[in-house]
Amino acid sequence: MPELRKDPIVGRWVIISTDRGKRPSDFAPLVKNKHPKSCPFCPGNEALTPPEIMAERPDGSAPNTPGWKLRVISNKYPALKIEGDLNREGEGMFDRMNGIGAHEVVIETNDHAEDMVDMELGRIKEVFIAYRTRMQDLRRDFRFKYIIAFKNHGEAAGASLEHAHSQIIATPVVPIRVQVEIEGSRKYYDYKERCIFCDIIKQETDWSDRVVAENEQFIALEPFAPRFPFETWIMPKIHTSAFLDITNAQTESLAQMIKTILAKLRVALADPPYNYVLHTDALDNKARDYYHWHIEVIPKLTKVAGFEWGTGFYINPVAPEDAAQYLRELSVS
Amino acid sequence: MPELRKDPIVGRWVIISTDRGKRPSDFAPLVKNKHPKSCPFCPGNEALTPPEIMAERPDGSAPNTPGWKLRVISNKYPALKIEGDLNREGEGMFDRMNGIGAHEVVIETNDHAEDMVDMELGRIKEVFIAYRTRMQDLRRDFRFKYIIAFKNHGEAAGASLEHAHSQIIATPVVPIRVQVEIEGSRKYYDYKERCIFCDIIKQETDWSDRVVAENEQFIALEPFAPRFPFETWIMPKIHTSAFLDITNAQTESLAQMIKTILAKLRVALADPPYNYVLHTDALDNKARDYYHWHIEVIPKLTKVAGFEWGTGFYINPVAPEDAAQYLRELSVS
Repeated sequence: MPELRKDPIVGRWVIISTDRGKRPSDFAPLVKNKHPKSCPFCPGNEALTPPEIMAERPDGSAPNTPGWKLRVISNKYPALKIEGDLNREGEGMFDRMNGIGAHEVVIETNDHAEDMVDMELGRIKEVFIAYRTRMQDLRRDFRFKYIIAFKNHGEAAGASLEHAHSQIIATPVVPIRVQVEIEGSRKYYDYKERCIFCDIIKQETDWSDRVVAENEQFIALEPFAPRFPFETWIMPKIHTSAFLDITNAQTESLAQMIKTILAKLRVALADPPYNYVLHTDALDNKARDYYHWHIEVIPKLTKVAGFEWGTGFYINPVAPEDAAQYLRELSVS
Repeated sequence: MPELRKDPIVGRWVIISTDRGKRPSDFAPLVKNKHPKSCPFCPGNEALTPPEIMAERPDGSAPNTPGWKLRVISNKYPALKIEGDLNREGEGMFDRMNGIGAHEVVIETNDHAEDMVDMELGRIKEVFIAYRTRMQDLRRDFRFKYIIAFKNHGEAAGASLEHAHSQIIATPVVPIRVQVEIEGSRKYYDYKERCIFCDIIKQETDWSDRVVAENEQFIALEPFAPRFPFETWIMPKIHTSAFLDITNAQTESLAQMIKTILAKLRVALADPPYNYVLHTDALDNKARDYYHWHIEVIPKLTKVAGFEWGTGFYINPVAPEDAAQYLRELSVS
């Protein structure tokens, strides 16, 4: 059983998940399946994965057989496990609980060679609808306090299989980075009675050179103080704290925006490894007036070294205005 | 001029240092100098570095010539620059200031092939004394609020030159991770009137299996909730908030401890890339009763992916008790 442990000084929970790496020598890079024949995410290999939780099957085919366009399965090597009680307890001055949670994988396409950026808009939209559907289901489990969705593309960004997929993790505590974001936006709201993200969108739209793209429902920009070169945030223009309230019309607009941004990054940076992470409100939804969900897209270009780890003080060699101009002027359609 | 910018939501400062990477395509790995002939940190190549700030020259040789055992120079590609005013200013709702600071390099040895772990104890001690000396000097500049010392070993850990060196950076703001640590230890102190690090040392010494090594002045342990496999903390057993108050006797004990830990990690993990970061009090020293300086040693074994970035929620596949036992039982002398 994985375990959640809290750092007593900074309050950060970590997952100690020893099933995933058994011995000190066990840190070899994960196996890549270049050939669809051996890829567990390819049609025909459904038996290689845990049974599916949901799937898009326009042909009405049976679960766990080919015929699907998108599949959601449990992660075969979950960081957290669904069965059991939390059993919060102390160990002297320390705090731990069982590593209860859900860890699911969204297989975004049945085509081994197709990246999200190449998918048709309707297919990308289905990926985000799958996130929403799974979140709406998982939130009913009262053990969970937060649900995160994210995508690792490329080995350097942490992907262990190259077939396009993303992941959903439900956690029994609110992760510290989310806590800090929610707390920060609450402080601003206490002072201004406005959402800080809405204010950022307004200021950036009015007079900044950090906007990369805009469509009906979404804006993409390089944040004022980005940790990484070409870090790009995609935000709904209408205030919404929780991604799981996204409308179908918004998912269409979001699909278009994410495709545009991924396409621009691919051309600008020669198909970089990247992560995107969905930042959304905690499940208690207390922050509905002041938090604003968004997606952070982070190309993996720089190494994070001692200085950054030790201080949280990132050194970014590319000004966001330069990155925004470069991406804005890039034609990708 | 590099620029410091503050994320308005979470309060994190980042350094935008565009001198260090000019174009989007500029992310090639840094050049390695395998041969002492072309290594700017080797004796005879002093002209390839900025002039030295201090040096160990037992033979009384002239500055910027061979004959030294240890040299401290300005970083040729500084993240922050020493000249100028801070010019704190707003940009609408955002905050920025000039990237004022010091960025120095400690060349730890005149032997290109010698890693810190191979150095004689007396030489390692001199490295820590150099940190102390430089910190004592830099703290007199009232523009600085914090000084960090750290070491990147190996390319995967961010080292751009393989000749053993560490870095010292003085910053005009207290980095967010340090703020959070100081704040966390203050809360504990408010409640218990004891230093949380002292309490951790006591508990771990009394009845935990996470202690790796102990000598006269220092203890090394795997923290209860480590982010990374084999993450190891080295702490002075006597409460001290600021590294720059370290005594000469303590530097000797510290040299011995760091050599032991680095030797154990080298054997256990086949000479892993690693970072160590000195966590010390802010220069205002307000936290003297409740903060406790220490060194965090982090072997670079796992990739940090989207989940970690997005949430600050680390997944660690090795329990600290297992890592501690493994390291404890490893004989390295």
